Amino acid sequence: MSKNNKEIVFYTNPESRACIVRRMLEEVGAKYTTKVLDYNGQMKTPEYLKINPLGKVPAITHGDLVVTETAAICAYLADQFPEKNLAPAPDSPERGTYYRWLFFGAGPVELATSAKACGWAIEGNEQMVGSGTLNEVMAALELAISKGPFICGEQFTAADVYIASHIGWGMQFKTLEERDSFKSYVERVDERPAIKKAAYWTRN
Amino acid sequence: MSKNNKEIVFYTNPESRACIVRRMLEEVGAKYTTKVLDYNGQMKTPEYLKINPLGKVPAITHGDLVVTETAAICAYLADQFPEKNLAPAPDSPERGTYYRWLFFGAGPVELATSAKACGWAIEGNEQMVGSGTLNEVMAALELAISKGPFICGEQFTAADVYIASHIGWGMQFKTLEERDSFKSYVERVDERPAIKKAAYWTRN
Repeated sequence: MSKNNKEIVFYTNPESRACIVRRMLEEVGAKYTTKVLDYNGQMKTPEYLKINPLGKVPAITHGDLVVTETAAICAYLADQFPEKNLAPAPDSPERGTYYRWLFFGAGPVELATSAKACGWAIEGNEQMVGSGTLNEVMAALELAISKGPFICGEQFTAADVYIASHIGWGMQFKTLEERDSFKSYVERVDERPAIKKAAYWTRN
Repeated sequence: MSKNNKEIVFYTNPESRACIVRRMLEEVGAKYTTKVLDYNGQMKTPEYLKINPLGKVPAITHGDLVVTETAAICAYLADQFPEKNLAPAPDSPERGTYYRWLFFGAGPVELATSAKACGWAIEGNEQMVGSGTLNEVMAALELAISKGPFICGEQFTAADVYIASHIGWGMQFKTLEERDSFKSYVERVDERPAIKKAAYWTRN
Protein backbone atom coordinates (compact mmCIF):
# COMPACT_ATOMS: atom_id res chain seq x y z
CA MET A 1 0.00 0.00 0.00
CA SER A 2 2.86 2.43 0.70
CA LYS A 3 3.60 4.86 -2.10
CA ASN A 4 7.32 4.30 -1.77
CA ASN A 5 7.86 4.78 -5.48
CA LYS A 6 7.25 8.52 -5.18
CA GLU A 7 9.88 10.74 -3.59
CA ILE A 8 9.03 12.65 -0.43
CA VAL A 9 10.80 16.00 -0.07
CA PHE A 10 10.65 17.54 3.41
CA TYR A 11 11.03 21.33 3.75
CA THR A 12 12.05 22.21 7.28
CA ASN A 13 13.93 24.38 9.72
CA PRO A 14 15.10 22.90 13.03
CA GLU A 15 13.60 25.88 14.91
CA SER A 16 10.06 25.33 13.74
CA ARG A 17 6.98 23.16 13.98
CA ALA A 18 8.52 21.10 11.18
CA CYS A 19 10.22 18.99 13.86
CA ILE A 20 6.81 17.40 14.40
CA VAL A 21 6.75 16.29 10.78
CA ARG A 22 10.27 14.87 11.16
CA ARG A 23 8.94 12.73 14.01
CA MET A 24 6.09 11.51 11.84
CA LEU A 25 8.36 10.75 8.87
CA GLU A 26 10.49 8.63 11.19
CA GLU A 27 7.40 6.93 12.67
CA VAL A 28 6.18 5.81 9.23
CA GLY A 29 9.72 4.86 8.19
CA ALA A 30 9.50 6.92 5.00
CA LYS A 31 12.49 7.61 2.82
CA TYR A 32 12.73 11.34 2.34
CA THR A 33 15.01 14.13 1.19
CA THR A 34 15.44 17.03 3.61
CA LYS A 35 15.66 20.66 2.49
CA VAL A 36 16.47 23.06 5.31
CA LEU A 37 15.23 26.61 4.62
CA ASP A 38 16.42 29.57 6.70
CA TYR A 39 14.18 32.38 7.95
CA ASN A 40 16.22 34.99 6.06
CA GLY A 41 14.73 34.70 2.62
CA GLN A 42 14.78 31.03 1.69
CA MET A 43 11.18 30.57 2.84
CA LYS A 44 10.07 33.58 0.75
CA THR A 45 11.54 32.75 -2.67
CA PRO A 46 9.03 32.67 -5.55
CA GLU A 47 9.84 28.97 -5.98
CA TYR A 48 8.98 28.08 -2.38
CA LEU A 49 5.93 30.38 -2.26
CA LYS A 50 4.45 28.17 -4.98
CA ILE A 51 4.67 25.30 -2.51
CA ASN A 52 3.48 27.28 0.50
CA PRO A 53 2.07 30.79 -0.11
CA LEU A 54 2.55 31.45 3.62
CA GLY A 55 6.33 31.17 3.16
CA LYS A 56 6.56 28.81 6.11
CA VAL A 57 7.78 25.35 6.92
CA PRO A 58 6.91 22.53 7.16
CA ALA A 59 5.79 21.37 3.77
CA ILE A 60 6.25 18.09 1.97
CA THR A 61 6.01 17.17 -1.65
CA HIS A 62 5.11 13.59 -2.51
CA GLY A 63 5.49 13.23 -6.24
CA ASP A 64 3.38 16.07 -7.68
CA LEU A 65 1.39 16.55 -4.48
CA VAL A 66 2.10 19.35 -2.00
CA VAL A 67 0.94 19.10 1.60
CA THR A 68 1.39 21.94 4.09
CA GLU A 69 0.18 22.36 7.69
CA THR A 70 1.87 20.20 10.28
CA ALA A 71 -1.19 18.25 11.38
CA ALA A 72 -2.31 17.71 7.79
CA ILE A 73 1.05 16.18 6.92
CA CYS A 74 0.85 13.90 9.97
CA ALA A 75 -2.67 12.73 9.05
CA TYR A 76 -1.70 12.26 5.40
CA LEU A 77 1.37 10.18 6.22
CA ALA A 78 -0.63 8.01 8.64
CA ASP A 79 -3.11 7.23 5.85
CA GLN A 80 -0.38 6.64 3.24
CA PHE A 81 1.41 4.11 5.43
CA PRO A 82 -1.55 2.15 6.84
CA GLU A 83 0.67 -0.80 7.75
CA LYS A 84 2.18 1.36 10.52
CA ASN A 85 -1.18 1.60 12.34
CA LEU A 86 -0.78 5.25 13.17
CA ALA A 87 -4.45 6.11 12.65
CA PRO A 88 -7.63 4.37 13.82
CA ALA A 89 -9.68 2.71 11.08
CA PRO A 90 -11.73 5.29 9.13
CA ASP A 91 -15.03 3.68 10.14
CA SER A 92 -14.17 3.30 13.84
CA PRO A 93 -15.40 5.55 16.68
CA GLU A 94 -11.76 6.15 17.61
CA ARG A 95 -11.39 7.99 14.32
CA GLY A 96 -13.59 10.72 15.83
CA THR A 97 -11.33 10.97 18.88
CA TYR A 98 -8.29 11.08 16.59
CA TYR A 99 -9.66 13.95 14.50
CA ARG A 100 -10.95 15.75 17.57
CA TRP A 101 -7.51 16.12 19.09
CA LEU A 102 -5.60 16.67 15.85
CA PHE A 103 -7.87 19.61 15.08
CA PHE A 104 -7.81 20.73 18.70
CA GLY A 105 -4.03 21.02 18.44
CA ALA A 106 -4.13 22.85 15.11
CA GLY A 107 -6.83 25.26 16.27
CA PRO A 108 -7.29 26.02 19.97
CA VAL A 109 -3.82 24.96 21.17
CA GLU A 110 -2.06 26.96 18.45
CA LEU A 111 -4.29 29.97 19.01
CA ALA A 112 -4.20 30.02 22.82
CA THR A 113 -0.44 29.45 23.03
CA SER A 114 0.23 32.05 20.30
CA ALA A 115 -1.97 34.50 22.23
CA LYS A 116 -0.01 33.77 25.39
CA ALA A 117 3.33 34.24 23.62
CA CYS A 118 2.23 37.47 21.90
CA GLY A 119 0.33 39.00 24.83
CA TRP A 120 -3.10 38.85 23.16
CA ALA A 121 -6.20 38.68 25.42
CA ILE A 122 -8.71 35.96 24.57
CA GLU A 123 -10.83 36.92 27.60
CA GLY A 124 -13.62 39.21 26.40
CA ASN A 125 -13.40 37.82 22.85
CA GLU A 126 -14.61 34.28 23.62
CA GLN A 127 -17.51 34.17 21.18
CA MET A 128 -15.37 35.58 18.36
CA VAL A 129 -12.39 33.32 19.02
CA GLY A 130 -12.90 29.59 18.62
CA SER A 131 -10.16 28.53 20.98
CA GLY A 132 -11.36 29.27 24.49
CA THR A 133 -8.95 30.53 27.12
CA LEU A 134 -5.58 28.97 27.85
CA ASN A 135 -6.92 27.45 31.09
CA GLU A 136 -9.78 25.83 29.19
CA VAL A 137 -7.35 24.56 26.56
CA MET A 138 -5.19 22.95 29.24
CA ALA A 139 -8.25 21.35 30.85
CA ALA A 140 -9.20 19.90 27.48
CA LEU A 141 -5.67 18.58 26.89
CA GLU A 142 -5.83 16.83 30.25
CA LEU A 143 -9.09 15.22 29.15
CA ALA A 144 -7.46 14.12 25.87
CA ILE A 145 -4.70 12.21 27.62
CA SER A 146 -6.71 11.04 30.64
CA LYS A 147 -7.85 7.75 29.12
CA GLY A 148 -4.35 6.70 28.20
CA PRO A 149 -1.83 5.49 27.64
CA PHE A 150 -2.44 7.37 24.37
CA ILE A 151 -5.13 9.66 22.99
CA CYS A 152 -6.99 6.84 21.25
CA GLY A 153 -6.36 4.42 24.14
CA GLU A 154 -3.93 1.56 23.58
CA GLN A 155 -3.19 2.60 19.99
CA PHE A 156 -0.40 5.14 19.51
CA THR A 157 -1.39 7.43 16.61
CA ALA A 158 -0.37 10.51 14.65
CA ALA A 159 -2.50 12.49 17.11
CA ASP A 160 0.03 11.58 19.81
CA VAL A 161 2.95 12.63 17.63
CA TYR A 162 1.25 15.99 17.19
CA ILE A 163 -0.23 16.65 20.64
CA ALA A 164 2.76 15.39 22.63
CA SER A 165 4.99 17.71 20.60
CA HIS A 166 2.71 20.66 21.35
CA ILE A 167 2.60 19.83 25.06
CA GLY A 168 6.34 19.23 25.32
CA TRP A 169 7.32 22.43 23.57
CA GLY A 170 4.54 24.38 25.28
CA MET A 171 6.00 23.45 28.68
CA GLN A 172 9.51 24.24 27.43
CA PHE A 173 8.54 27.67 26.10
CA LYS A 174 6.23 28.41 29.07
CA THR A 175 3.10 28.77 26.96
CA LEU A 176 1.60 25.75 28.79
CA GLU A 177 1.88 24.97 32.51
CA GLU A 178 4.07 22.11 33.65
CA ARG A 179 1.66 19.46 34.94
CA ASP A 180 2.46 15.92 36.05
CA SER A 181 -0.07 14.48 33.62
CA PHE A 182 1.51 16.41 30.75
CA LYS A 183 5.04 15.34 31.70
CA SER A 184 4.28 11.64 32.00
CA TYR A 185 2.43 11.64 28.68
CA VAL A 186 5.28 13.39 26.89
CA GLU A 187 7.75 10.94 28.44
CA ARG A 188 5.71 7.99 27.13
CA VAL A 189 5.83 9.40 23.61
CA ASP A 190 9.49 10.42 23.81
CA GLU A 191 10.46 6.82 24.62
CA ARG A 192 9.56 5.68 21.12
CA PRO A 193 12.56 4.83 18.93
CA ALA A 194 11.34 6.93 15.99
CA ILE A 195 10.84 9.97 18.22
CA LYS A 196 14.36 9.56 19.59
CA LYS A 197 15.72 9.25 16.07
CA ALA A 198 13.92 12.45 15.02
CA ALA A 199 15.34 14.25 18.07
CA TYR A 200 18.82 13.32 16.89
CA TRP A 201 18.21 14.93 13.50
CA THR A 202 16.77 18.12 14.93
CA ARG A 203 19.98 18.73 16.85
CA ASN A 204 22.02 18.48 13.65
CA MET B 1 -21.32 1.05 6.41
CA SER B 2 -23.21 3.95 8.00
CA LYS B 3 -23.57 3.76 11.74
CA ASN B 4 -27.23 4.70 11.61
CA ASN B 5 -28.05 2.55 14.58
CA LYS B 6 -26.36 5.02 16.92
CA GLU B 7 -27.98 8.33 17.71
CA ILE B 8 -26.23 11.55 16.75
CA VAL B 9 -26.90 14.49 19.08
CA PHE B 10 -25.86 17.89 17.72
CA TYR B 11 -25.07 20.69 20.18
CA THR B 12 -25.36 24.05 18.48
CA ASN B 13 -26.20 27.72 18.54
CA PRO B 14 -27.32 29.44 15.32
CA GLU B 15 -24.80 32.25 15.92
CA SER B 16 -21.75 30.03 15.93
CA ARG B 17 -19.42 27.90 13.83
CA ALA B 18 -21.85 25.05 14.54
CA CYS B 19 -23.73 26.07 11.39
CA ILE B 20 -20.90 24.42 9.47
CA VAL B 21 -21.62 21.13 11.22
CA ARG B 22 -25.32 21.51 10.39
CA ARG B 23 -24.33 21.74 6.72
CA MET B 24 -22.24 18.61 7.02
CA LEU B 25 -25.00 16.68 8.83
CA GLU B 26 -27.34 17.57 5.98
CA GLU B 27 -24.73 16.61 3.38
CA VAL B 28 -24.34 13.10 4.82
CA GLY B 29 -28.08 12.79 5.35
CA ALA B 30 -27.69 11.81 8.98
CA LYS B 31 -30.58 11.59 11.37
CA TYR B 32 -29.77 13.75 14.36
CA THR B 33 -31.27 15.40 17.39
CA THR B 34 -30.53 19.10 17.82
CA LYS B 35 -29.83 20.71 21.18
CA VAL B 36 -29.55 24.50 21.01
CA LEU B 37 -27.43 25.93 23.84
CA ASP B 38 -27.42 29.65 24.62
CA TYR B 39 -24.32 31.70 25.44
CA ASN B 40 -25.73 32.67 28.83
CA GLY B 41 -24.83 29.63 30.87
CA GLN B 42 -26.06 26.59 28.95
CA MET B 43 -22.64 26.06 27.37
CA LYS B 44 -20.97 26.22 30.80
CA THR B 45 -23.05 23.71 32.78
CA PRO B 46 -21.05 20.90 34.45
CA GLU B 47 -22.94 18.44 32.23
CA TYR B 48 -21.93 20.14 28.99
CA LEU B 49 -18.37 20.82 30.13
CA LYS B 50 -17.95 17.03 30.30
CA ILE B 51 -18.68 16.98 26.57
CA ASN B 52 -16.60 20.06 25.72
CA PRO B 53 -14.32 21.48 28.45
CA LEU B 54 -14.12 24.67 26.37
CA GLY B 55 -17.83 25.26 26.97
CA LYS B 56 -18.38 25.89 23.28
CA VAL B 57 -20.43 24.58 20.40
CA PRO B 58 -20.40 22.67 18.14
CA ALA B 59 -20.09 19.20 19.56
CA ILE B 60 -21.71 15.96 18.56
CA THR B 61 -22.21 12.74 20.40
CA HIS B 62 -22.52 9.55 18.37
CA GLY B 63 -23.44 6.80 20.78
CA ASP B 64 -20.79 6.99 23.50
CA LEU B 65 -18.38 8.98 21.37
CA VAL B 66 -17.91 12.75 21.71
CA VAL B 67 -16.44 14.79 18.87
CA THR B 68 -15.71 18.51 19.19
CA GLU B 69 -14.00 20.98 16.82
CA THR B 70 -15.92 21.89 13.71
CA ALA B 71 -13.44 20.51 11.18
CA ALA B 72 -12.98 17.30 13.16
CA ILE B 73 -16.72 16.68 13.11
CA CYS B 74 -16.81 17.30 9.35
CA ALA B 75 -13.94 14.87 8.72
CA TYR B 76 -15.44 12.28 11.06
CA LEU B 77 -18.87 12.40 9.40
CA ALA B 78 -17.30 12.12 5.93
CA ASP B 79 -15.52 8.92 7.04
CA GLN B 80 -18.61 7.51 8.77
CA PHE B 81 -20.77 7.94 5.68
CA PRO B 82 -18.37 6.79 2.94
CA GLU B 83 -21.22 6.19 0.51
CA LYS B 84 -21.68 9.97 0.29
CA ASN B 85 -18.18 10.41 -1.23
CA LEU B 86 -17.40 13.49 0.82
CA ALA B 87 -13.73 12.60 1.34
CA PRO B 88 -11.08 11.37 -1.11
CA ALA B 89 -9.97 7.76 -0.62
CA PRO B 90 -7.51 7.46 2.30
CA ASP B 91 -4.73 6.17 0.04
CA SER B 92 -5.19 8.79 -2.70
CA PRO B 93 -3.03 11.89 -3.27
CA GLU B 94 -6.17 14.00 -3.03
CA ARG B 95 -6.39 12.98 0.61
CA GLY B 96 -3.33 15.16 1.20
CA THR B 97 -5.02 18.14 -0.46
CA TYR B 98 -8.15 17.48 1.60
CA TYR B 99 -6.27 17.44 4.90
CA ARG B 100 -4.14 20.42 3.87
CA TRP B 101 -7.11 22.74 3.50
CA LEU B 102 -9.17 21.35 6.39
CA PHE B 103 -6.25 22.05 8.71
CA PHE B 104 -5.52 25.34 6.98
CA GLY B 105 -9.05 26.43 7.84
CA ALA B 106 -8.84 25.26 11.44
CA GLY B 107 -5.42 26.83 11.99
CA PRO B 108 -4.31 29.81 9.89
CA VAL B 109 -7.77 30.98 8.74
CA GLU B 110 -9.18 30.86 12.27
CA LEU B 111 -6.11 32.56 13.72
CA ALA B 112 -5.71 35.30 11.11
CA THR B 113 -9.42 36.18 11.02
CA SER B 114 -9.63 36.12 14.84
CA ALA B 115 -6.59 38.44 14.95
CA LYS B 116 -8.27 40.76 12.47
CA ALA B 117 -11.52 40.78 14.46
CA CYS B 118 -9.76 41.34 17.79
CA GLY B 119 -7.14 43.84 16.59
CA TRP B 120 -4.14 41.58 17.24
CA ALA B 121 -0.96 42.14 15.16
CA ILE B 122 0.52 39.05 13.53
CA GLU B 123 3.19 41.19 11.82
CA GLY B 124 6.34 41.00 13.92
CA ASN B 125 5.30 37.68 15.43
CA GLU B 126 5.51 35.58 12.25
CA GLN B 127 7.91 32.94 13.53
CA MET B 128 5.94 32.48 16.74
CA VAL B 129 2.54 32.37 15.08
CA GLY B 130 1.86 29.52 12.67
CA SER B 131 -0.73 31.31 10.60
CA GLY B 132 1.08 33.91 8.53
CA THR B 133 -0.53 37.28 7.89
CA LEU B 134 -4.09 37.78 6.69
CA ASN B 135 -2.86 38.68 3.18
CA GLU B 136 -0.86 35.46 3.01
CA VAL B 137 -3.86 33.48 4.26
CA MET B 138 -6.05 34.97 1.53
CA ALA B 139 -3.40 34.17 -1.11
CA ALA B 140 -3.35 30.59 0.11
CA LEU B 141 -7.16 30.35 0.02
CA GLU B 142 -7.10 31.53 -3.58
CA LEU B 143 -4.62 28.76 -4.35
CA ALA B 144 -6.89 26.21 -2.64
CA ILE B 145 -9.85 27.03 -4.86
CA SER B 146 -7.89 27.81 -8.04
CA LYS B 147 -7.96 24.27 -9.44
CA GLY B 148 -11.71 23.96 -9.09
CA PRO B 149 -14.51 23.53 -9.25
CA PHE B 150 -13.82 22.26 -5.73
CA ILE B 151 -10.76 21.99 -3.48
CA CYS B 152 -10.05 18.39 -4.48
CA GLY B 153 -10.97 19.04 -8.12
CA GLU B 154 -14.18 17.51 -9.44
CA GLN B 155 -15.03 15.87 -6.12
CA PHE B 156 -16.99 18.00 -3.63
CA THR B 157 -15.75 17.14 -0.13
CA ALA B 158 -16.06 18.04 3.53
CA ALA B 159 -13.15 20.44 2.94
CA ASP B 160 -15.47 22.49 0.73
CA VAL B 161 -18.22 22.49 3.36
CA TYR B 162 -15.69 23.85 5.83
CA ILE B 163 -13.66 26.28 3.70
CA ALA B 164 -16.61 27.75 1.79
CA SER B 165 -18.31 28.46 5.12
CA HIS B 166 -15.19 30.24 6.38
CA ILE B 167 -14.85 32.28 3.20
CA GLY B 168 -18.55 33.17 3.07
CA TRP B 169 -18.77 34.29 6.66
CA GLY B 170 -15.34 35.94 6.50
CA MET B 171 -16.57 38.15 3.66
CA GLN B 172 -19.83 38.82 5.51
CA PHE B 173 -18.07 39.82 8.75
CA LYS B 174 -15.29 41.72 6.92
CA THR B 175 -12.48 39.56 8.24
CA LEU B 176 -11.71 38.46 4.67
CA GLU B 177 -11.77 40.64 1.54
CA GLU B 178 -14.53 40.24 -1.01
CA ARG B 179 -12.85 38.73 -4.07
CA ASP B 180 -14.51 37.46 -7.23
CA SER B 181 -12.84 34.07 -6.87
CA PHE B 182 -14.13 33.76 -3.31
CA LYS B 183 -17.67 34.77 -4.28
CA SER B 184 -17.98 32.37 -7.20
CA TYR B 185 -16.63 29.48 -5.11
CA VAL B 186 -19.06 30.19 -2.26
CA GLU B 187 -21.94 30.41 -4.78
CA ARG B 188 -21.02 26.98 -6.18
CA VAL B 189 -21.16 25.46 -2.72
CA ASP B 190 -24.30 27.33 -1.68
CA GLU B 191 -26.17 25.84 -4.64
CA ARG B 192 -26.08 22.38 -3.13
CA PRO B 193 -29.47 21.19 -1.82
CA ALA B 194 -28.05 20.10 1.55
CA ILE B 195 -26.41 23.50 2.07
CA LYS B 196 -29.70 25.21 1.27
CA LYS B 197 -31.52 22.93 3.70
CA ALA B 198 -29.01 23.73 6.43
CA ALA B 199 -29.44 27.46 5.77
CA TYR B 200 -33.18 27.04 6.38
CA TRP B 201 -32.54 25.52 9.79
CA THR B 202 -30.06 28.14 10.86
CA ARG B 203 -32.70 30.82 10.37
CA ASN B 204 -35.10 29.01 12.67
